[in-house]
Amino acid sequence: MLTLHTWTTPNGRKIPIMLEELGLQYTIKTVNIGKGEQFQPEFLAISPNNKIPAIVDTDADGNSVSIFESGAILTYLAEKTGKLLPASGPERYEVLEWLHWQIGGLGPMLGQVGFFAIRAEEKSALAIQHFIDEADRLLGVMDKQLSKHAYIAGAAYSIADIACYPWTVGILDKLKPALGDKLETKPHLQRWLNMIGARPAVQRGMALPKVD
Amino acid sequence: MLTLHTWTTPNGRKIPIMLEELGLQYTIKTVNIGKGEQFQPEFLAISPNNKIPAIVDTDADGNSVSIFESGAILTYLAEKTGKLLPASGPERYEVLEWLHWQIGGLGPMLGQVGFFAIRAEEKSALAIQHFIDEADRLLGVMDKQLSKHAYIAGAAYSIADIACYPWTVGILDKLKPALGDKLETKPHLQRWLNMIGARPAVQRGMALPKVD
Ligand SMILES: N[C@@H](CCC(=O)N[C@@H](CS)C(=O)NCC(=O)O)C(=O)O
Ligand SMILES: N[C@@H](CCC(=O)N[C@@H](CS)C(=O)NCC(=O)O)C(=O)O
Repeated sequence: MLTLHTWTTPNGRKIPIMLEELGLQYTIKTVNIGKGEQFQPEFLAISPNNKIPAIVDTDADGNSVSIFESGAILTYLAEKTGKLLPASGPERYEVLEWLHWQIGGLGPMLGQVGFFAIRAEEKSALAIQHFIDEADRLLGVMDKQLSKHAYIAGAAYSIADIACYPWTVGILDKLKPALGDKLETKPHLQRWLNMIGARPAVQRGMALPKVD
Repeated sequence: MLTLHTWTTPNGRKIPIMLEELGLQYTIKTVNIGKGEQFQPEFLAISPNNKIPAIVDTDADGNSVSIFESGAILTYLAEKTGKLLPASGPERYEVLEWLHWQIGGLGPMLGQVGFFAIRAEEKSALAIQHFIDEADRLLGVMDKQLSKHAYIAGAAYSIADIACYPWTVGILDKLKPALGDKLETKPHLQRWLNMIGARPAVQRGMALPKVD
């Protein structure tokens, strides 16, 4: 049995997309981070960094693995099923380099645009500009990569696409007032967004978790 | 033949430490990021995000793999040698979750402390406080984990320790004026720093790359 602890944020949607792509059975437990549920002891026991997503996967013999950090979870699910991450060779490390690029670059930097431009009560023009410039640079790196390859990590769809999609598509709505037209000037990124967004599993995953 | 492109920064030192631990033969090419060498076309061809570290590994038949992002490089070297990352089981994903935690959390957040508190010409009190609070929270998460386990990812030394060490030890010198006594109040982190810092391979790696 696989339980996914998640919420309606970019990092929170990567794993529902992956599970839908793989067709695995799973149960979702919502962790409302707006209400501070990520600080409850039961959740901290599986995610000591108080962040979603996290999973607990228990096999038929009762052996259990619990994992936090979306990059580690995506790698686990890919290795468990043999899908969306080549088992060896240069193609494997192309996927892992772009996965780490999302985890260490695109994610935290767009997250900081969100904090300084939208959530912070006080506004720092310096910080807003710093992170918008960095976000624009990162989206430019992605656009250049997608000008040469169909997918983020080359010719095949992979967990690197799944990691990047919810963050990039998020720019279209939430971060748009802060980022302006930075996305319209990235045609290859636009092509990729349309292609990934047309996948049924991506559409199902992006609608999760359901909250009342 | 393995060529490492790197510089004298926390991310830049992870790979020399790993290569020294593994006893692999390698050549270092320095990329002086203070002089903008990360923007040279030859370097961008292997590291399109204009960041060190990156490696190119060519086998006896001339087959070559080039990898950027320190987390992907550490994973590649661990999988190539079968060392410092278990091949399967829960222990594998404990290492990967803490590796991703470093790449997506500790690294970028301490990096932003460095930018706003030290490098930025203009100072934003809001941004400085935001990243010092986040750095302190992350170091607290690490201290708590190390209160229960000898190493970052459990009972064994792994690539998660190698990823975290150059960043954490960096606080002791460069970021100290900004972070104050935040480290002294973390006894388990201190124990771990002393233990990792005593490893000969770590000492050799931390002294690299040599620059004139
Ligand atoms: N590097 C982490 C980032 C996870 C993350 O930032 N999660 C956010 C929501 S998108 C969260 O849970 N925030 C709650 C908090 O920090 O208290 C990953 O990829 O899983
Ligand atoms: N997530 C990347 C971060 C690498 C990184 O930030 N490298 C810095 C030096 S520590 C760099 O090359 N900066 C030059 C630049 O951004 O132009 C990794 O872990 O490899």
